[in-house]
Amino acid sequence: MSMTRRDFAITAAAALTTTSAIDRAQAQATSGTAQNHADHDMSSMPAHWMGSEQIAFLIYPQFTALDMVGPHHMLTSLMGATVHMVAKTLDPVVSDAGLIVSPTKTFEQCPADLDVICVPGGTSGTLAAMQDEATMRFLRDRGGRAKHVTSVCTGSLLLGAAGLLDGYEATSHWAARPLLPIFGARPVDARVVRDRNRITGGGVTAGIDFGLFLVGQLRDPEYAEAVQLIAEYAPDPPYDAGTPARAPAKVKTMIDDMFVGFIAEAETVSRTAFASRR
Amino acid sequence: MSMTRRDFAITAAAALTTTSAIDRAQAQATSGTAQNHADHDMSSMPAHWMGSEQIAFLIYPQFTALDMVGPHHMLTSLMGATVHMVAKTLDPVVSDAGLIVSPTKTFEQCPADLDVICVPGGTSGTLAAMQDEATMRFLRDRGGRAKHVTSVCTGSLLLGAAGLLDGYEATSHWAARPLLPIFGARPVDARVVRDRNRITGGGVTAGIDFGLFLVGQLRDPEYAEAVQLIAEYAPDPPYDAGTPARAPAKVKTMIDDMFVGFIAEAETVSRTAFASRR
Repeated sequence: MSMTRRDFAITAAAALTTTSAIDRAQAQATSGTAQNHADHDMSSMPAHWMGSEQIAFLIYPQFTALDMVGPHHMLTSLMGATVHMVAKTLDPVVSDAGLIVSPTKTFEQCPADLDVICVPGGTSGTLAAMQDEATMRFLRDRGGRAKHVTSVCTGSLLLGAAGLLDGYEATSHWAARPLLPIFGARPVDARVVRDRNRITGGGVTAGIDFGLFLVGQLRDPEYAEAVQLIAEYAPDPPYDAGTPARAPAKVKTMIDDMFVGFIAEAETVSRTAFASRR
Repeated sequence: MSMTRRDFAITAAAALTTTSAIDRAQAQATSGTAQNHADHDMSSMPAHWMGSEQIAFLIYPQFTALDMVGPHHMLTSLMGATVHMVAKTLDPVVSDAGLIVSPTKTFEQCPADLDVICVPGGTSGTLAAMQDEATMRFLRDRGGRAKHVTSVCTGSLLLGAAGLLDGYEATSHWAARPLLPIFGARPVDARVVRDRNRITGGGVTAGIDFGLFLVGQLRDPEYAEAVQLIAEYAPDPPYDAGTPARAPAKVKTMIDDMFVGFIAEAETVSRTAFASRR
């Protein structure tokens, strides 16, 4: 039958959810041969490849779409997981680059207890969301109970504003990372930073590394490798300017200057939001 | 003022479109100092950084969202460019992973002459689109005149079915690449393949490399480096299984088996579609 990235989850899930298959899988798991896919029978996969996570992405006006779609691609490959696109209302949400995405759940409709909450970043839209009481209330509530509290890019400013990074190591977009101490967080210069159940990703494209990392955490390395192969994730950037350290000085200076105003505004909003977090 | 990824385009465009700024930029371009951003005055950017491209992404039911959103992120950073999300109707389109995206233009509303048409891939949804006459008619028409005819992942099967890759080197998702000769194309094992005005990307995540490559082609390397730095695109995959050659044999075999059915179905659909392309 036709097996594809999406089918990978659907078909395998169907196979595993037949009692006999689960018995078979569990028998293999206990017999220690769970990793043996020699016969490539989907129903012979280890039982722990089948999950039941409730995963929610928070989206808001002017969010950066790639911050969300990178990890969304990876996490929707988790067999048995349910992925929700959550926003203040069900009205379509327009990203900072004009992509129009429809939410599937409002704040009220989102499951109360989440396995993963993931917050994408943005710029002016992120600062607006930090000042939106309904958004912060939702984040404090779900983030306070979620098994994994996560973000990509400047989404960590939203987690921080909600008081969710106080005393944790975290990262953010390289330009916003110096703001993290405002929230009591310790900035770490890395693509993916895990501190207990907080997992934060760096700027925009780091969301793909973050998403694949989380897949490995929620299943196992072999499952993550399968997802990586299906996504043909063997990146080969045509230029080498992806970090301030690697970018040509002229480019670095130009972009630094571009961010000056945003960072100043973000610092003010961050201090105010964190001070009034309760 | 606040300068951000999106503002990069908007503000710089505003600056450049003031007559005095354009005069300044053109004067610099002719004086050969166009690349000198020493004063970091946005309005002193080279005139050629300001474009006017008409760019269209074709989306269809069950497309793979990351195939489109990766390059969309990069191409929406092109100052002066207009990016359209084109579909058969304006009804929201649901991706293979359940992401709901709203088109901005129907086939009829899409500009007749495009600078770039980009087709994302998918699996069963892509095969369905190859068999949809309205979709193929749109692709043959716009693709026949577009300055750059492009795809990501199995989107190259749609280009091929429309007869747009006949006699061209191209790539696709690694599992679908062997199908390209059906369309008269020469398969190349690379993340991004350019042959004259055809530019095709590999599977899913290759769309980001493709998008950044195209930004460099439509502007210049320095512009692309600025976009790469803002996107913090310095990938660092937590696993190393992104190609059949790098994935563990067990994972490779498992995924190969998963694709068998899809590839067989895709081959039949491809032969039929290519045979009836006119």
